[in-house]
Amino acid sequence: MIDCDVHNDWSSSNVLLPYIDPTFRDYLLRGELPGARGSFPHAHRPWLHPEDFRRHDIKPTTDDEHYSFMREHLLDRYQHDVAILTGEEALEVSTLANPHYASALARAYNDWAVDTWLPRDDRFWMSLIVAPQDPQGAAAEIRRLGAHPRVVQVLTSHGSYRPYGDKFYEPIWEACHEMGLPWAVHLGGQGGINYQPIGGGPTTYYWETHALLLQPAMTHVASVIANGIFERYPNQKLLVIECGVTWLPSILWRLDANWRALRKETPWVKRLPSEYARDHIRMSTQPLEEAATKQQLWDVLRAMDGENMLMFASDYPHWDFDAPDDMPLPPTWMDKVMDANARQVYTKLPRTPVPWQLDAHKEPAL
Amino acid sequence: MIDCDVHNDWSSSNVLLPYIDPTFRDYLLRGELPGARGSFPHAHRPWLHPEDFRRHDIKPTTDDEHYSFMREHLLDRYQHDVAILTGEEALEVSTLANPHYASALARAYNDWAVDTWLPRDDRFWMSLIVAPQDPQGAAAEIRRLGAHPRVVQVLTSHGSYRPYGDKFYEPIWEACHEMGLPWAVHLGGQGGINYQPIGGGPTTYYWETHALLLQPAMTHVASVIANGIFERYPNQKLLVIECGVTWLPSILWRLDANWRALRKETPWVKRLPSEYARDHIRMSTQPLEEAATKQQLWDVLRAMDGENMLMFASDYPHWDFDAPDDMPLPPTWMDKVMDANARQVYTKLPRTPVPWQLDAHKEPAL
Repeated sequence: MIDCDVHNDWSSSNVLLPYIDPTFRDYLLRGELPGARGSFPHAHRPWLHPEDFRRHDIKPTTDDEHYSFMREHLLDRYQHDVAILTGEEALEVSTLANPHYASALARAYNDWAVDTWLPRDDRFWMSLIVAPQDPQGAAAEIRRLGAHPRVVQVLTSHGSYRPYGDKFYEPIWEACHEMGLPWAVHLGGQGGINYQPIGGGPTTYYWETHALLLQPAMTHVASVIANGIFERYPNQKLLVIECGVTWLPSILWRLDANWRALRKETPWVKRLPSEYARDHIRMSTQPLEEAATKQQLWDVLRAMDGENMLMFASDYPHWDFDAPDDMPLPPTWMDKVMDANARQVYTKLPRTPVPWQLDAHKEPAL
Repeated sequence: MIDCDVHNDWSSSNVLLPYIDPTFRDYLLRGELPGARGSFPHAHRPWLHPEDFRRHDIKPTTDDEHYSFMREHLLDRYQHDVAILTGEEALEVSTLANPHYASALARAYNDWAVDTWLPRDDRFWMSLIVAPQDPQGAAAEIRRLGAHPRVVQVLTSHGSYRPYGDKFYEPIWEACHEMGLPWAVHLGGQGGINYQPIGGGPTTYYWETHALLLQPAMTHVASVIANGIFERYPNQKLLVIECGVTWLPSILWRLDANWRALRKETPWVKRLPSEYARDHIRMSTQPLEEAATKQQLWDVLRAMDGENMLMFASDYPHWDFDAPDDMPLPPTWMDKVMDANARQVYTKLPRTPVPWQLDAHKEPAL
């Protein structure tokens, strides 16, 4: 089983001190931070989770404790074959005004993760976090570390300065394609220099806002297709992580109809948007929508070819964690969604898919 | 058959001169306008339709011609029983910085429509357009004209300064509820003082953007529910016009799950968001999504109880007009979607539903 969203948190951002460029070491040691010493430099959302989005029952104080807790409560309990590490606060570098500092922090995170997380467990594979507001710096980072045998994707927040199909990001697409890495877009990065994440006005409450945070993901899907990324980079994949999934058919149908009527506006878009999505876009499951009935959910998932489009993710250790032994999906899809689809996308993983065995995963949930 | 979105265009905004408050008459006659003399005062979108969203084959030069063209090509051809007039550019008053001027223009539009459109045809019923950035002015307008026997709804653009559940709009909800009128939110109002309509960054092309313009509607749905509008105004309806429909299950499932987990944040929200939606929200069909197969579309529509949630709209005379004789809906839903659902919402219409007769509507499409 492959879990596409496992957060390897740190005890404090001081863990980055041995790794960060000397120019910016002082910023971390002495400079202004958004919280107490040891907090990570980023802007914060104006929507604060009333219980904290990190679970209160999982708050280790050291990095080793983070790992041993994760091993006990996630990796061993659910018998993970692969856990794709997605960092935690490091993703929020996208909110910083200073692109040089943002890229320095991303580089430090990547080196720290290679150095301290990968050696801990054979099941770990990692994301390369980059600062999308610094496309040249991000591209250089992808070329610096992208060939590492355990680096399987480039990762940015879905909160962004512009939609990711925009010309501004061309160096990142170019580097991803060159290194054979998917670009994964993960919920986060609301605030700071990033554009408003929700259309129509500032929402009020956390639960309302969180539900609407699918919108930037929808925007990236449309933008990447409309700007011809998949024509220029024919093997490129875009992954959408932690943004929900059932909104996809609706936006693809709208894009298909509009492209048919107005294709003269983008002559480089040669195929239906839904065809690009089928070949180039994958989505992680968590938080999988909870419909009134399983049938309703499955009907919508079938309309988006969920069997081939979805990749399992738990989002450990967050408030809305999805347990791998409690996925409300059609049983015949499980081999693909829990394992094989991710192996197609993360080409550095061993290519032999592991069949989904429900028995092996019958341990009580966390 | 009831058509919930019929645009009664004007030949020039000069038609408003006899109706507008004297204070603002000079603004229209002598003041700055966004186009040539006779253009309507509003901000314009940065996304320009490459063919114009108004059809080139329907460009009458006088108001009478507008009507006779509409009668021939829409009302008589498809045998409409009811056409709900939704104005045209007047909706864009929401984009103006000066709320007094915006409300004066809305009032002038309403008086002009009562005076010149309603008398033309027994099939006409109208929307009261208000300037949402002027909640007190909008509420006064709703009380001034809301009791007119042919006024069936209050209408604003879906582009807005804040999401419509926000406290700022309380006077409008109060007046709607008092006068027994639904608040209808119609695609439009992108630009000017309004908040960015699309989350995640400024999109590039018209077709891409138009597909994403469901986002502010989604935001209003969430905001109105989260802020308890339907608890404070128990008979109130919110109508979503021209924003697509198949995105609704996805956002309601997300809202339901989040509310269940975090209901302490909004103790005034007593029921599942999807239950409020079922009782209080209705959507017009156009532009109905075009799925790869009818089955896929119907599966999603069933998941949102489309049979009871949808009301037919043609959006005459725009580029993406939906013909009433070509609606890809389950045949057993037609009585409700083409007629009965709208009669439940627009309580001033005669309450006897007209059964849908396919034969009577077999004329060739426009």
